[in-house]
Amino acid sequence: MGRKLRMGMVGGGPGAFIGPVHRMAAELDGRIEMVAGAFSQSAERSRAAGQSFGIAPERAYADYREMIRAEKRRADGIDFVVIATPNHLHLPVAEAALQAGLAVMSDKPATATYDEVVALEMAVAKAGLPYGLTHTYAGYSLVREARQLCASGKLGAIRKIAVEYLQGWLSQPLEKSGQKQAAWRSDPVLNGPGGCIGDIGTHAFHLTEYVTGLKVTSLHATLRTVVAGRQLDDDCNAVLRLENGASGVLMASQVAAGEGNGLRLRVYGENGSIDWHQEDPNRLRVKWLDGPEEIRHASGSYLGADARAVTRLPGGHPEGYIEAFAVLYREFADGLIAWREGKADPLPATLPGIVAGVRGMRFVERAIESNRSGNWVEF
Amino acid sequence: MGRKLRMGMVGGGPGAFIGPVHRMAAELDGRIEMVAGAFSQSAERSRAAGQSFGIAPERAYADYREMIRAEKRRADGIDFVVIATPNHLHLPVAEAALQAGLAVMSDKPATATYDEVVALEMAVAKAGLPYGLTHTYAGYSLVREARQLCASGKLGAIRKIAVEYLQGWLSQPLEKSGQKQAAWRSDPVLNGPGGCIGDIGTHAFHLTEYVTGLKVTSLHATLRTVVAGRQLDDDCNAVLRLENGASGVLMASQVAAGEGNGLRLRVYGENGSIDWHQEDPNRLRVKWLDGPEEIRHASGSYLGADARAVTRLPGGHPEGYIEAFAVLYREFADGLIAWREGKADPLPATLPGIVAGVRGMRFVERAIESNRSGNWVEF
Amino acid sequence: MGRKLRMGMVGGGPGAFIGPVHRMAAELDGRIEMVAGAFSQSAERSRAAGQSFGIAPERAYADYREMIRAEKRRADGIDFVVIATPNHLHLPVAEAALQAGLAVMSDKPATATYDEVVALEMAVAKAGLPYGLTHTYAGYSLVREARQLCASGKLGAIRKIAVEYLQGWLSQPLEKSGQKQAAWRSDPVLNGPGGCIGDIGTHAFHLTEYVTGLKVTSLHATLRTVVAGRQLDDDCNAVLRLENGASGVLMASQVAAGEGNGLRLRVYGENGSIDWHQEDPNRLRVKWLDGPEEIRHASGSYLGADARAVTRLPGGHPEGYIEAFAVLYREFADGLIAWREGKADPLPATLPGIVAGVRGMRFVERAIESNRSGNWVEF
Amino acid sequence: MGRKLRMGMVGGGPGAFIGPVHRMAAELDGRIEMVAGAFSQSAERSRAAGQSFGIAPERAYADYREMIRAEKRRADGIDFVVIATPNHLHLPVAEAALQAGLAVMSDKPATATYDEVVALEMAVAKAGLPYGLTHTYAGYSLVREARQLCASGKLGAIRKIAVEYLQGWLSQPLEKSGQKQAAWRSDPVLNGPGGCIGDIGTHAFHLTEYVTGLKVTSLHATLRTVVAGRQLDDDCNAVLRLENGASGVLMASQVAAGEGNGLRLRVYGENGSIDWHQEDPNRLRVKWLDGPEEIRHASGSYLGADARAVTRLPGGHPEGYIEAFAVLYREFADGLIAWREGKADPLPATLPGIVAGVRGMRFVERAIESNRSGNWVEF
Repeated sequence: MGRKLRMGMVGGGPGAFIGPVHRMAAELDGRIEMVAGAFSQSAERSRAAGQSFGIAPERAYADYREMIRAEKRRADGIDFVVIATPNHLHLPVAEAALQAGLAVMSDKPATATYDEVVALEMAVAKAGLPYGLTHTYAGYSLVREARQLCASGKLGAIRKIAVEYLQGWLSQPLEKSGQKQAAWRSDPVLNGPGGCIGDIGTHAFHLTEYVTGLKVTSLHATLRTVVAGRQLDDDCNAVLRLENGASGVLMASQVAAGEGNGLRLRVYGENGSIDWHQEDPNRLRVKWLDGPEEIRHASGSYLGADARAVTRLPGGHPEGYIEAFAVLYREFADGLIAWREGKADPLPATLPGIVAGVRGMRFVERAIESNRSGNWVEF
Repeated sequence: MGRKLRMGMVGGGPGAFIGPVHRMAAELDGRIEMVAGAFSQSAERSRAAGQSFGIAPERAYADYREMIRAEKRRADGIDFVVIATPNHLHLPVAEAALQAGLAVMSDKPATATYDEVVALEMAVAKAGLPYGLTHTYAGYSLVREARQLCASGKLGAIRKIAVEYLQGWLSQPLEKSGQKQAAWRSDPVLNGPGGCIGDIGTHAFHLTEYVTGLKVTSLHATLRTVVAGRQLDDDCNAVLRLENGASGVLMASQVAAGEGNGLRLRVYGENGSIDWHQEDPNRLRVKWLDGPEEIRHASGSYLGADARAVTRLPGGHPEGYIEAFAVLYREFADGLIAWREGKADPLPATLPGIVAGVRGMRFVERAIESNRSGNWVEF
Repeated sequence: MGRKLRMGMVGGGPGAFIGPVHRMAAELDGRIEMVAGAFSQSAERSRAAGQSFGIAPERAYADYREMIRAEKRRADGIDFVVIATPNHLHLPVAEAALQAGLAVMSDKPATATYDEVVALEMAVAKAGLPYGLTHTYAGYSLVREARQLCASGKLGAIRKIAVEYLQGWLSQPLEKSGQKQAAWRSDPVLNGPGGCIGDIGTHAFHLTEYVTGLKVTSLHATLRTVVAGRQLDDDCNAVLRLENGASGVLMASQVAAGEGNGLRLRVYGENGSIDWHQEDPNRLRVKWLDGPEEIRHASGSYLGADARAVTRLPGGHPEGYIEAFAVLYREFADGLIAWREGKADPLPATLPGIVAGVRGMRFVERAIESNRSGNWVEF
Repeated sequence: MGRKLRMGMVGGGPGAFIGPVHRMAAELDGRIEMVAGAFSQSAERSRAAGQSFGIAPERAYADYREMIRAEKRRADGIDFVVIATPNHLHLPVAEAALQAGLAVMSDKPATATYDEVVALEMAVAKAGLPYGLTHTYAGYSLVREARQLCASGKLGAIRKIAVEYLQGWLSQPLEKSGQKQAAWRSDPVLNGPGGCIGDIGTHAFHLTEYVTGLKVTSLHATLRTVVAGRQLDDDCNAVLRLENGASGVLMASQVAAGEGNGLRLRVYGENGSIDWHQEDPNRLRVKWLDGPEEIRHASGSYLGADARAVTRLPGGHPEGYIEAFAVLYREFADGLIAWREGKADPLPATLPGIVAGVRGMRFVERAIESNRSGNWVEF
C-alpha cells in the first residue's frame, strides 16, 4: 500500500451527525485520511470542527472554494472532496471540485433537483473523474449477497418487491425547534422539492434497483405532509412497475412513530424470496418455495464472493453502519488509485455513482409528478 | 351451562382444510357440538366426511337444503348452519338457512360478489337472526389488545397503516394440478371476481378497519395476475385513505414465494405504533416515540379487558389459529343464546358479522374498479 | 371411526388451569369425549365444574373411587381416567383405575416420589393397560422433527445439550396468598420433595432424553430456595452427562422474573445443532457447521414423517399448546383402541408413558441427592 | 483536541484477525494513530504487515523489545503499546513496556497463567501507568445500560444469572490444519492451561461481574475436551455462586457447531430481568414481573447516561464489534491523557483493567481446580 489518500470535507460541521460518520468511514480501512475541510461557513465553527477532527487549523476553511484553491496549491493537498452539506450545495461543490480536478464522494441525493443532476452528470462526464455517491446501505455485505443472489437466477424471475424505509423522528415539527437536521430538510430551498421522498425514498428506490438489477419503468406515488405546517412531504407510498413486468410497493415515512431507521427490502422470485432489514444487517433471510427458510449470516463461508469481499470480521462479530459506509469509501479509494493508473472505468459496479444519482433524482421528480396528477407516470 | 348448541356444516368435506378447523374451533370451548353436515354434494363423500367427524350417517346429507329440512324436523335438530363452501354457495346456503330460522356462521368472504352481499344483508335483516363471519384473525387476543389500544387514544390520532397478507402457495399454477383449494379459488364462477383480493385481501382490509376503528374512504388498487393462464388476480397492491385523513398501504399476494400465511398489521399514531404478525400471534409490539419498544405477551396481566376476555392459557403457553377461530365461535354461541333469550343486539361488536361482510365485498368491488380504471375510487 | 372414547377426569376442578386444558386437548381431534369427572373432593364444587364442562350432574363425583365404581357399572361408562390432581394423588388414583381395568392418562410427574413411581410401574405392568404421561411438549410437531433429526444421524454424534425451563411466576411467595396452583406445589406433602425440579425440571429432563434418544447417566445438581420461607426448591442448575459421553446443562427456575414458560432445548452435534423454544413452537432452528442457518416451519413440506403426522394446519397457521397436548391424547386414544384389538405394544414410542415416568422421578431423586451431598451422582 | 496518541502494536501480524481490529478500533474515534509495530517475529512479515497498515518500514520491528527501545528514542515515539500476541507473551511484553514507561492496552486474558497475572499486577502497580484490558464486550452501549440498570436497583436484588459463550469454530481439529488462530490456542505453552475457559470463558465471567457488579465467590466447573487429540478444554459448564447469594450458570464452548460468537447474558432480579446477546448488540431486552417486555434500542433517548456516553449514531444505525472495541480505546486514550495531566486514578471504572485481569485468571485457575477435583471451590 502506498500513501493514504487525502480527503477534504465540505459540510459535516457542528450539529451534523453525518460529518463524523464520513470521517470514521473514510478512515476505517486505512486507505484514506481526512486532512482538510470546509466544515461550516463560519470560520470559527469550521476551525472548531477541524480541531475536533484533529485537522490542522490552517486546513479548516470557511469556504469550499477556498479549500479547493488552497489545497490545490499544497504538495500534500487533498485528493478528493467529500460533500456532506445540505442538498442545495451538492451541485456547486461537486462542480467546483471536478473543475479543479478533484474526485468527488457525495452524500445522497446527488443534487437538490432533477435539473441539477442532469447538469452534474455532464460535469462528471466532462471531468472524467471518479464520482461516488454514498448510498450507504449498498455497502452492507448481505446487500451484496442479496444482489448476487438476484443476479444468479436462483430465485427465478423476480415478480414482486416490497421496500420500505420507515423513520419516526419527524413525527413532531422538530424543524421548528431549531434542530439543524430537521430544519434544512424541511426547507425546499435547502433541500429541494422532495422531503421524505428525497431524503429516504431515494435510498429505498436505489436499494431496489441495486439489488434486483431491474429498473423501475413507471410508478404511482402518493405523497403526504402529515405534520401540520411542514413545507415538504413526510410520508410517501408508491406502487412501482419494473422493467421485467414485476411490480412492487415502496413506502417511506418520517412520521412512523416508534421506528428508528427501518429500511427493509423484500424481493420475491418464482422460486423463493429474500428479506433484508437494515436494523439487523448481519442476517439475510432467504425463503424458498420448497425448503426451510435460510438465515445467511455475515461472514458465512457459504456466502458469494461479493459479500465476502467486503467482510472484515469472523462470523458473529457484528459489523454496522460505519463499516458499510467504509466499504463504499474503500471502493472509492481503490477506484481513485486505479483511475490515476489510467484504468478506463475505475469504479466498480458495486459502488453507486452518478448513474444512481440521476436515477434517484428522476425518481423524486416522477413521484412528485404522479402525486400532483394522481396518475401513473412513466419513468 | 345448558346443553351445547348444535351445528350443521355445509361444505368442508374431503380435501377441504377448513372443514375440520371449523369443527375443532366450534367445539373447543365446550359450547357447541357438530351433529350434522352436508359436507359434499356426493352422498358417499358426505357420509365419509361425516364418519370422520363422528356424525351419525343419517345426518350426513348430500344437499344443504335437505339438511336444513331434515334437521328442522328433528327434536334434536341443529341450531345453526356453518358455511364452509366455495364462495358462490355462500349466499344461497345462507338464505336457505335464514329462511328456515337457523342462525348462520359463514366463512369469508360473505358472498362471491358485491351484489350478492347486498341481497344477503337484506336477508339477514329480514330474518333477524344472528349472522357471524369468520374473519378468524379477529379472534386473536392480541388483535383485541391492538383494537382496544387504538380506541384508547394512547397512540394519538392514527396517521398511517401498513397491512400486508403474503402467501406463496399459488406461486405455481396449482389449480391445474387438481388441488381442490386452488381450483375453486381460481375459477371466477365458483369464487367470484376477486382472486387474491377476495381471498386474503379482504382479511387484510377487515383487520385494518377492525383494529383502527376507522373506515377506508377511497383507494387506489393495482391487481395483477402473475402466474400465466390464471383467471383471477394473484397479487394486489393498494393505497388506502381512511376517514380521519390517515393513509396506508395494503399488500396481498399469493405468489410471494416462501411466505406462509403472512398477515401483518402496523398502525402508526402520533405517539407510537403497533405491529402484529399472525405467524407470531402471541406477541404485540408497541413502539413509542419516546420510550422503549414494548412486547406485550398474550395473557399478560397488563393487557386490557378485551384481550383477557379471550385468553385461555397462562403466559407463555401459545394459543394459535384454532384458538382464535374458537373465540369467534364462542362469541357466536353466546350471541345465539342471548338472541334466544330475546336480547336485542345479541352479537358483540368484537364478532365480525354482516356489516363486515358488506364492507369486505365493497372493498373487492372497489379495488377491481380502481384497477380497471387506473384511478383512485371512492369507497 | 367408531364411537368416541369416554374419559373421566380426576382433579382439574375450580382454580385448576389444567382441567379445562385436558378437556380441550382430549376432545380436539374428535376421538374422545369427557363424560364424567371427580373434579373436586367437594361434591358441590365437583358438580359445578362438571356443569361448566357440560357433564351430566350424576356423573360429577366427589370421589375418584366412587367415579370408578359408578362408571364401571354403566353401559356407557368411561374408557379411561385422566389424572389432573396434585401429585400426591397420582399414585392412588392410577392404581385404583388400573385395578378397575381402566387405562390411565396422567399429568406429570407420574407420582410424588421415586418410591411411588416404582410401585406404579409394577401396577401398570401388572394391569397390562395403556398408561400415558402428559409431557405436553413431546406433542409439538417440531419436537418430533428435532427427535427425528437427532435419530437420523445428520447432526453427527451428539456432543452437548443445553436445556432450560425458566418461569417467573413464583418470584414472590404466591403460595402464601392462597393461589391454589402455587399452594400445593409448595407443599412437600401434596407435591413431593422436588419443587421446581419436579414441576418443570422433569419436563426439561424428559425433553432432553426424548429428543436426543440418549440417557442421562450422571449429574451434578444445585437446588436453591430463593424465596424466603418457601418449603421447596424454586431454582435448579444441573450439569448432566449422557450415555454417549455428551454433556450438558439443565436450568430450571420458577423465580426467573419476567419469564413466562421458557422451555428451550439446544442440541449440538458434530455437524450442526438444533434449537427449539416452546414459546415459538412453530419454528425449529437448525444450524450447520458449514451452511446457512435453517428455520424449519411447522407444516413444511420438507419436514420428516413424524412431524407431518401430527400437523393439522397448513404452513403459517400457528398451532399451540393445546394442539400439542391433543397430539398426546390422539396417540393415547389410538393406542387404547389398538390395545382393545389385542395389539401387543399398543402405545407408540412417541407417546411418553410409564418408562418416562420412572426416569423423571429418578431424575428428581438423584438431583436432590446430588444437591444434598454436593457431589456428582450416578443415575 | 491535541495531537493524536501514538500506538505501537505487538503481534497482530499476518493471519491474525485481531491485529487489524485493534488498529480500526484504536483509530476510529480520531484520538489515536498506530505508528509502529512488532507485528511478527519475522522481520519480513512484520514489515509486510506494517505496510498493509500504512506504517513506515523503519517502524515495523521484528522484536517488541527493539520497538520499545527505538520508539523511546524518537521524538514522535509511541505513547503506548498494544498487546495482540498469543497469551504467553502478554506478561513479558507488558512488563517491558511498563518498565520503559509506556502505558499498555492488552488483549485478554491478561496473561497465560494465574501466577503470571499476579506478577503483572505488581508490575502495573509499580509502574503507576495506565493498563487497559480489551474485554471488548464491555464497550457495547447496551452492556453499559445493563450495568447501570443493575446498579440502579430497579431489578431488585439479583437472584440468578445465566451467561453463555458459544462458538462452533473448533468443532473439528482445526489446529491440525495449520490454522494459526486455532494452533496457538490449542497449545498449552503458548496459550496457558485454560483452553475454551481461558479464551472465551473469561469473557463470560468478566461480563457477569461487570454487569451485575457482584463478585463470584465459589464455583463448580466441568471442563471437557470434546475433539479427540486436542490438548486443552474446548467445552465448559460451570455453576457459580455470587457474593450476595445469587447463583448462576456459565456455559462456554468452542464445539457448539453452528454457533458463531454467541455471548449472551441474562440477569434475573426480584422484579425483572435483562437479556443481552452480542450477536444482536443494539437491543437490550428487559422483562418485568408485571409489565410488558421492553426492548431498549441503542441510542434511545430513554437510555441511561452510561449508554449514551458511548453512542455514536442515531437510533436504528447499527454499531458493531469494532465500535464497541473503540469505546475501550477511547476511554483508554482519555485516561492516558488524564494520567499525563497528573490525575490520580485516570482510568474510568467502565474500562476493564488489571483488576479484571486478575479476576479472569483466577477464574481460569479455579475452574481447572474444580474440574480436577470434581468439587466446589472457593474463589
